[in-house]
Amino acid sequence: MSNPVTFELLHTCKQSGARLGVLHTPHGDIPTPIYMPVGTQATVKAMTPREMEEINAKIILSNTYHLHLRPGEDIVREAGGLHQFMDWHHPILTDSGGFQVFSLSELRKITEEGAAFRSHLDGSKQFISPEISMDIQQALGADIAMAFDVCSAYPCDRKTAEEAMHRTHRWAARCKKHHTRSDQALFGIVQGAFFDDLRIESAKTLADMDFPGYGIGGLSVGEPKPVMYDMLHLPKNKPRYLMGVGTPDCFLEGVLRGVDMFDCVLATRIARNGTCFTRNGRLVVRNAAYAHDFTPIEEGCDCYACQHFSRAYVRHLLKAEEITGGRLTSIHNLRFLIRMMEEIRQAILEDRFLDYRKEFYEKYDLTRNF
Amino acid sequence: MSNPVTFELLHTCKQSGARLGVLHTPHGDIPTPIYMPVGTQATVKAMTPREMEEINAKIILSNTYHLHLRPGEDIVREAGGLHQFMDWHHPILTDSGGFQVFSLSELRKITEEGAAFRSHLDGSKQFISPEISMDIQQALGADIAMAFDVCSAYPCDRKTAEEAMHRTHRWAARCKKHHTRSDQALFGIVQGAFFDDLRIESAKTLADMDFPGYGIGGLSVGEPKPVMYDMLHLPKNKPRYLMGVGTPDCFLEGVLRGVDMFDCVLATRIARNGTCFTRNGRLVVRNAAYAHDFTPIEEGCDCYACQHFSRAYVRHLLKAEEITGGRLTSIHNLRFLIRMMEEIRQAILEDRFLDYRKEFYEKYDLTRNF
Repeated sequence: MSNPVTFELLHTCKQSGARLGVLHTPHGDIPTPIYMPVGTQATVKAMTPREMEEINAKIILSNTYHLHLRPGEDIVREAGGLHQFMDWHHPILTDSGGFQVFSLSELRKITEEGAAFRSHLDGSKQFISPEISMDIQQALGADIAMAFDVCSAYPCDRKTAEEAMHRTHRWAARCKKHHTRSDQALFGIVQGAFFDDLRIESAKTLADMDFPGYGIGGLSVGEPKPVMYDMLHLPKNKPRYLMGVGTPDCFLEGVLRGVDMFDCVLATRIARNGTCFTRNGRLVVRNAAYAHDFTPIEEGCDCYACQHFSRAYVRHLLKAEEITGGRLTSIHNLRFLIRMMEEIRQAILEDRFLDYRKEFYEKYDLTRNF
Repeated sequence: MSNPVTFELLHTCKQSGARLGVLHTPHGDIPTPIYMPVGTQATVKAMTPREMEEINAKIILSNTYHLHLRPGEDIVREAGGLHQFMDWHHPILTDSGGFQVFSLSELRKITEEGAAFRSHLDGSKQFISPEISMDIQQALGADIAMAFDVCSAYPCDRKTAEEAMHRTHRWAARCKKHHTRSDQALFGIVQGAFFDDLRIESAKTLADMDFPGYGIGGLSVGEPKPVMYDMLHLPKNKPRYLMGVGTPDCFLEGVLRGVDMFDCVLATRIARNGTCFTRNGRLVVRNAAYAHDFTPIEEGCDCYACQHFSRAYVRHLLKAEEITGGRLTSIHNLRFLIRMMEEIRQAILEDRFLDYRKEFYEKYDLTRNF
């Protein structure tokens, strides 16, 4: 059976070794490196699909855990699948639910069979196994499904990390066996917490299982950022997805080390609280300092918010708790990350990614990082 | 001084006597009868200006009371006026603040000089007189300003209504005297509660003062709807604006009696709670009945929500408290009212407004009215 999702490496930056590629999927091609905005509940928060197209989003991520609980995968399947349900006719990736279940902490119990937990919505008893995660994701029908993995807390001891890793590998095999949908690819997930040797063992084990792509898991749960950079030991001909990571500096460091895909809810989450990405670092447009500032959120930004509205206006909307305020900051933050990734791809193509990275950091105030 | 806003009567429906006209304003012409969506705090809730253009909105209303308290008219003036501040380059009407102050009930004290009240935001002491209302509205810079009037509660006794009316007349004179902005028209407001003879006296008094247009006030505060229909005794060559009224049946009855302008927050307010206008009456798309309904909110509607999304999806978004849900229902409800008014204008032009009204009521379930 030919794989529905394939990765093509187009160019390697002569200056940095960073990768430029294209991911072929049933719903179209995705240039890499790519940032995937998060549409947890079958919508990117505060955005419509046509706005996502306008900011040049190419693929979005949606959450299996959330959609399973509400509205339920049966409704999504009945609608004709997630693309049809949410009117997004470009690629979609669904996570496996593993990370969300892990995040419930006190509410869950994980055994070899799977994860028992209580719904954060109504406290009802729920259970997701590798097979059930596959069933849900196949019903949702994204272009890319993710294996159901075991996350471990940070910090955690070596024994815990090792056990979680081994179980993740066993679950990956069960996912692979149970996954049959021919127009959907299944990616494996590397675990091993922050232990270099475990990460390498996990990467090698999963590489041997020959997934069409790999998630790099467990590195966004509060550990020191530098830890992640030594942990990429995956086959060169497969896409590598650094899960849950999506700040400007992480883009630069991840791409430098060969990451092809990123996702993060930060852009839209902080937007609704009135915090924006800029080339200089964090801008809290909600602050009183901007009450009389009639310049855009970021000079030079090509997004709808920056082309039409002032910081003073956006601040007013946020203070007045107007939905339009969070809409404008969401558009800006998403476009910021997508545009930055467009620039990164161009820099790789032109063999000047190290220059780009250096120039970015020269402007960027890391004390106003995220 | 020539008036910046003039009304041109284009046609009177031979079947019904309903009026078709055009209102010329500094920011463009408005066809009448017209529905004005409400942008209380310098934004129509959940909407952007380009979406307002897309649904064919021609004029919006914004609220003097709210903008005075937040962000304050100084910031709006500094931005270059309300059009510039909110990026709406079409006509705007601002109300006077009278109705909002009245609605504060226990928080206000009205004397001949003006209205003292406490801010609903921070409890701070505030005072608006006819002159202050004019100053604020001139700073905001809408195309049409409204006189600062005295509303009375419903029901109220004749003495109260009469006193409020006479004070409204005295305040209208003070507003007219204080209003000097040459690119802004000032409309008078008829009061008199539900007493026919007072309404007539008020209309005549204000007609004698020769305002370029007239608001019909105090008829949306919970009184039986039929009461309003006998109260239109205003000059035929001036626009008549039935303030705060905007349901499908009120459009039909108001237009039949010569109303040219309407506004109401209902469309966007109920939208965010998951209730939609349809040709059959109220549709609570949030209801469980629509969980598996993959038809649009309203078949045949040309709005973005109905062209792209199902009731099942919109319901999911509303239940999941996603901003996108309230956005889609807001787009639909506003477009519904604007489209209905487009049809009304066409029916008047073709001398068949009574037929249109009859056909509308035949489909429309008044037990599912608003």
